Amino acid sequence: MSAAAESRNALETDVVIIGAGPVGLFQAFQLGLQEVSCQIVDALPHAGGQCVELYADKPIYDMPGVPVCTGRELAGRLLQQIAPFQVKLHLGQQVTGLARTDDGWRLQTSAGLVLLARAVVIAAGVGAFVPRRVAIDGLAAFEGSQVHYHQTDARRLIDQRVVVMGGEDAALETALQLADSGLCASVTLLHRNSKFKAEPALAAALQQAIDAGRIAIALGQPVAIETSADGRLLALQIATGDDSHEWLALDALLPRLGLSPKLGPIADWGLAMERKLLAVDPATQACSEPGLFAVGDICHYPHKRKLLLCGCHEATMAAFAISAWLRPEQRQLLQYTTTSPRLHELLGVTGKSGRN
Amino acid sequence: MSAAAESRNALETDVVIIGAGPVGLFQAFQLGLQEVSCQIVDALPHAGGQCVELYADKPIYDMPGVPVCTGRELAGRLLQQIAPFQVKLHLGQQVTGLARTDDGWRLQTSAGLVLLARAVVIAAGVGAFVPRRVAIDGLAAFEGSQVHYHQTDARRLIDQRVVVMGGEDAALETALQLADSGLCASVTLLHRNSKFKAEPALAAALQQAIDAGRIAIALGQPVAIETSADGRLLALQIATGDDSHEWLALDALLPRLGLSPKLGPIADWGLAMERKLLAVDPATQACSEPGLFAVGDICHYPHKRKLLLCGCHEATMAAFAISAWLRPEQRQLLQYTTTSPRLHELLGVTGKSGRN
Repeated sequence: MSAAAESRNALETDVVIIGAGPVGLFQAFQLGLQEVSCQIVDALPHAGGQCVELYADKPIYDMPGVPVCTGRELAGRLLQQIAPFQVKLHLGQQVTGLARTDDGWRLQTSAGLVLLARAVVIAAGVGAFVPRRVAIDGLAAFEGSQVHYHQTDARRLIDQRVVVMGGEDAALETALQLADSGLCASVTLLHRNSKFKAEPALAAALQQAIDAGRIAIALGQPVAIETSADGRLLALQIATGDDSHEWLALDALLPRLGLSPKLGPIADWGLAMERKLLAVDPATQACSEPGLFAVGDICHYPHKRKLLLCGCHEATMAAFAISAWLRPEQRQLLQYTTTSPRLHELLGVTGKSGRN
Repeated sequence: MSAAAESRNALETDVVIIGAGPVGLFQAFQLGLQEVSCQIVDALPHAGGQCVELYADKPIYDMPGVPVCTGRELAGRLLQQIAPFQVKLHLGQQVTGLARTDDGWRLQTSAGLVLLARAVVIAAGVGAFVPRRVAIDGLAAFEGSQVHYHQTDARRLIDQRVVVMGGEDAALETALQLADSGLCASVTLLHRNSKFKAEPALAAALQQAIDAGRIAIALGQPVAIETSADGRLLALQIATGDDSHEWLALDALLPRLGLSPKLGPIADWGLAMERKLLAVDPATQACSEPGLFAVGDICHYPHKRKLLLCGCHEATMAAFAISAWLRPEQRQLLQYTTTSPRLHELLGVTGKSGRN
């Protein structure tokens, strides 16, 4: 697509928030109160970031007024809180490009989406959660053709010899899903040893599938690939426990080795950084480039603490600064959600409150 | 009491927090996580500050992860959150004195309490909520003898002609309580006009008491007092609606005109101030005097916003700074309530979590 055509198809918004973790979601809430429109991009297929990825079922005790809630509950409550603002979330895609335009920023995502915004808030936490890669020479060239880190669609693997790699829930789920479909020629689960770390129900289902001959198990560490003259991936060489090697023939490899946070392209955007963190002015959360802001775990200022609450405060400071940046002529008022009729209107609670 | 005797009776703690509003309560929580002991002083007879005094039943929509809760609910949740730390609250008394000692601060309250602390956090919001005074020349001299802003004990008003002043719930409640006691010679409710602003149930009870002759009504604005040669308050001169004046004889006056925030003695402590606010460094919340910190609506730094969430963030920053101030030799760790066994122990949730 030409740049001109791309721009015609681009989505326009006041602000793009990079990261749909708790701080990114609260950023959308605070921008909503300021009547600034925004859209959110996140690499994960769901909102909640670390809260859902790392401690979905673990308790959080230090949010003010919330004596205890799990990561997943907190993400759910924040989504409920931003619901009045109907914020568009672009999930399952990473921001790959960021470039200055005449009056703001142009962002591109790994899914080919183009977003034009006046300002950008980087709320990327420890980086984008991306699938852990298999480190074998030459394998990366097959990503998207024969190596699939994301998709598990059996209809695209019909009559193929599929190897799923990994030893935890995600790997077992993928292998079972493909075996259950009955569409693949074979399904092999490859893991470095015989110890699987999975939910009891999944482990039992796996054992049943192995016993029934629907899933084969291969144990060992892949170390090399074999390719054909016409550039197809033919097999993986596996180093087994007894220092010998085996070849595992395949048509498709689906690594499911978990997610690993990657700062990714943010490090290449030429912003002032301190130990891999974006340096900001805590009064505005502004980065070294005008119109770029950073909040949450990815930002740094003197005595910064990587706590959820502090990230939410930073999102508040950023929202005021962005509002002033977008509308320099407008006088800023501090309105309270408890008393402001305008905020009640924005929150969709007109008539429900303020009567007491 | 001599200064030496006073010091022997003084309470000792790491930190005194001035103000039991939401930010003061959250300050206690964050200090608790840092294993720093604290006690709280507040002028109001209950915890919650503005949250309970000004918007007890009004909704708050902007606390992260709390889509909606009332001021009273928020105060209740914060009290629940600090329960594990068993924080001592000294309510119904104002801090009247603050003086430097060899290794910290000596505070005195209006109830005669003396507190010795290594550090002090001023979380006093818009100031102490104190009863609105009646502005008539000479009346202040009778406070505590014949004019009572706080107490409503009928047993101390036996056979007296009592005038209660005010037109809202508190005034009606006081008048009804005294009339119901049957101990006073008479109970008169004095208000500037016949419009009372009270709960329907209270208004109905008042009408019943008037009809039964247990409460008399006087309408008008008090403008002067009459005193006896031996210095007793004899009567109030009332300017009535029709430009005439009346005298209202009394033995006791109980003004119930609501509460008004007063910065009080804080303004006299020689701290750097900006428009009646305490100037702080937002990295530590430290005031201009070492060992004194300020958080919440009473503090000021560049772009400071008077929001609950921001006050809670400030309390977090102050807790870290105070911990470092008290234990400069100790290396500071950022621990998470989600994962730290030590924090779980402090919060009394050992064994309940961390198993997932």
